[in-house]
Amino acid sequence: MKPARTGIITLLTDFGDTDGYVGAMKGVIATTWPQARIVDISHRITPFFIVSAAFVLKTYAPHFPPGTVHTAVVDPGVGGDRKCIAASAGGRYYVGPDNGIFSFIFKENDDYVVHAIENAKYMRAEVSDTFHGRDIFAPASAHLARGAKLADFGPRVDEPLFLHEAFPASAENAVEGKIIHIDSFGNLITNITREHLGGFDGGTLAIRSAGRTIIGLSGTYGEREPGELIFYFGSSGHLELAAVEQNASFTLKAGIGDSVRVVTKRGRGRRGGGEEKE
Amino acid sequence: MKPARTGIITLLTDFGDTDGYVGAMKGVIATTWPQARIVDISHRITPFFIVSAAFVLKTYAPHFPPGTVHTAVVDPGVGGDRKCIAASAGGRYYVGPDNGIFSFIFKENDDYVVHAIENAKYMRAEVSDTFHGRDIFAPASAHLARGAKLADFGPRVDEPLFLHEAFPASAENAVEGKIIHIDSFGNLITNITREHLGGFDGGTLAIRSAGRTIIGLSGTYGEREPGELIFYFGSSGHLELAAVEQNASFTLKAGIGDSVRVVTKRGRGRRGGGEEKE
Amino acid sequence: MKPARTGIITLLTDFGDTDGYVGAMKGVIATTWPQARIVDISHRITPFFIVSAAFVLKTYAPHFPPGTVHTAVVDPGVGGDRKCIAASAGGRYYVGPDNGIFSFIFKENDDYVVHAIENAKYMRAEVSDTFHGRDIFAPASAHLARGAKLADFGPRVDEPLFLHEAFPASAENAVEGKIIHIDSFGNLITNITREHLGGFDGGTLAIRSAGRTIIGLSGTYGEREPGELIFYFGSSGHLELAAVEQNASFTLKAGIGDSVRVVTKRGRGRRGGGEEKE
Repeated sequence: MKPARTGIITLLTDFGDTDGYVGAMKGVIATTWPQARIVDISHRITPFFIVSAAFVLKTYAPHFPPGTVHTAVVDPGVGGDRKCIAASAGGRYYVGPDNGIFSFIFKENDDYVVHAIENAKYMRAEVSDTFHGRDIFAPASAHLARGAKLADFGPRVDEPLFLHEAFPASAENAVEGKIIHIDSFGNLITNITREHLGGFDGGTLAIRSAGRTIIGLSGTYGEREPGELIFYFGSSGHLELAAVEQNASFTLKAGIGDSVRVVTKRGRGRRGGGEEKE
Repeated sequence: MKPARTGIITLLTDFGDTDGYVGAMKGVIATTWPQARIVDISHRITPFFIVSAAFVLKTYAPHFPPGTVHTAVVDPGVGGDRKCIAASAGGRYYVGPDNGIFSFIFKENDDYVVHAIENAKYMRAEVSDTFHGRDIFAPASAHLARGAKLADFGPRVDEPLFLHEAFPASAENAVEGKIIHIDSFGNLITNITREHLGGFDGGTLAIRSAGRTIIGLSGTYGEREPGELIFYFGSSGHLELAAVEQNASFTLKAGIGDSVRVVTKRGRGRRGGGEEKE
Repeated sequence: MKPARTGIITLLTDFGDTDGYVGAMKGVIATTWPQARIVDISHRITPFFIVSAAFVLKTYAPHFPPGTVHTAVVDPGVGGDRKCIAASAGGRYYVGPDNGIFSFIFKENDDYVVHAIENAKYMRAEVSDTFHGRDIFAPASAHLARGAKLADFGPRVDEPLFLHEAFPASAENAVEGKIIHIDSFGNLITNITREHLGGFDGGTLAIRSAGRTIIGLSGTYGEREPGELIFYFGSSGHLELAAVEQNASFTLKAGIGDSVRVVTKRGRGRRGGGEEKE
């Protein structure tokens, strides 16, 4: 059984906050269904970084009530042949491009049901090549929040796209991951979660792009010196790298897509962490 | 007949997103009329660039339901002698300074009716010299959204200000325009729309400030090499310049106010576009 | 008697606008109490600058209707031993860390009542060390907006923390203040208000960090040359420094925490202001 709709539509985009693009989406939603309750998440996802949006989405989506519609539009393939989709997963609804932006959501909720948005009745009368946010995703979100059924939008999509880079690879006694997001404090967030590390309770982490190795998992920020590099599980459950009271992204010149390798077999490192040059 | 009010008030300002200025406006609106539904558009219009705000406004205003109140405050003349106005045009309501910020709205909706806001009953008790957003425009927006009549605010304004730079000039076989907005992707948006170019189906575009000439109108982004300069009609119907997968504003060192010239008589250019140095 | 709740919860944080942190807070609020009306103020307070958040808070808080819940989370001490508090003052409610973020609110409203948030019933089931915004402050805000009593959250806090730097010191014929906020236009806002200057009607202001002295209080922006340094009482009632049509923070290389000294005894300065090198 599907949860009752809450009327809430959340918006996540890379449209920036200096234009009318987001405003146009909000207007179309309000015109399609005036009772919709629009909630801004962020419109400043790094342009075109789908994996970053996918990560951010998982950090807030489950905190909203069941029945919420989460709309996420980071869509470098707009106007090409990627599908537009409406989905349910874990009790919430999702609207956006089928480009992997829902990789974490679908991975963590294997009850996902995905349909293509092809029914013109649920689109604006004129659909542009460059702005599906306004012309397809906004009206679809409003119709879904109001109670439309997924099957009304179009045919079932059995295999939605999953982003390869959203998930780490296992090696012997190690996990090979990537940086998938940089938060506003400059912390580097990886695609490695607790479950990927199994019984890990320490060990070393190497940041390939920066030629640095950090030894030992940290607890909270408070125990270290300013500038010291630490890694730890953040509030999202993902392994994060930070430079205490500094911007790790600047310090390490590291970016989204850079490789990280965690040696899961406990090394000779000092308990409580530390750092050494590679 | 005037459309029923929707209770929606949209906010567009150049107040930035690091202060309490916008919050103060929202508080005054909520105090004046608690049922108001406030929708943020952007508070990061380039400070004092009225023409940029005027452009952004036209990209979202018509997508909202009739009866919506659109409040727009980019107001370098605050405290001077420019009027404060409340207006209706094309079924929506508008509140802001009479400094040309509604140039496109009034140009495209010749049913516009404009009144000065002079009735102190619709202002905060104490009106500062520097913050009419909080003291005049916020309460006026709430009163208008709740159902006040335009005539209640003050006398009719027959000739609201139009910005000269909002509209291009015609020359022989050419249109002389200006860049009026830079979007968050760095695309340069001009004041030239389809109707200004008449039967144009190709030709050349010169960006005066940057000494560059681009030949031929493009379709979508997908067909070109990264960095290639293209021009095309964007989702707003305005002619835009972009550098494929790059930031055209940085690449061209071009800004708001720079001149662009479109030769409307089809030249010898290759079909499908291209670029040459001037 | 406490004012009726309005259902409005305002949010002020330093979480930035590129992540899901604020979205997670909004989701927890919506889950705790779906009728809450969330109003964004700013999420771009300079990270960890409590005094800047405290200032911004005072510029919008009193403009909201009585019964509004103002939630403010700039919380460098998260995970340490600072208390989490829920309070009432001047007819509004406040939720955040007990780190001085409510210094101005409590100073200006001596009817303040503060309680610690210790009742686990009003928190998320699992409370992280690093994200009290989501796990403690968001649910507390929703419960408070819905009508919970302050005493339900935990024991009374008789002496909440006040920030030393929020208030200037008096010297002979002078006031020693600090810059506590830089607004998005680059204006430098001090902790000095009209009441600190008593009968002052001119005199000189020295900016210590920048080695500059400005003579004479200004009225509005309109009277001066571009680039000229002026000081005046802004819309918040605080003494502000600006560079006409420029960014004073850049021009003066001044930042939050820098000292300013106002000589309150009228000097030999020209009437209407001016500037001289120290």
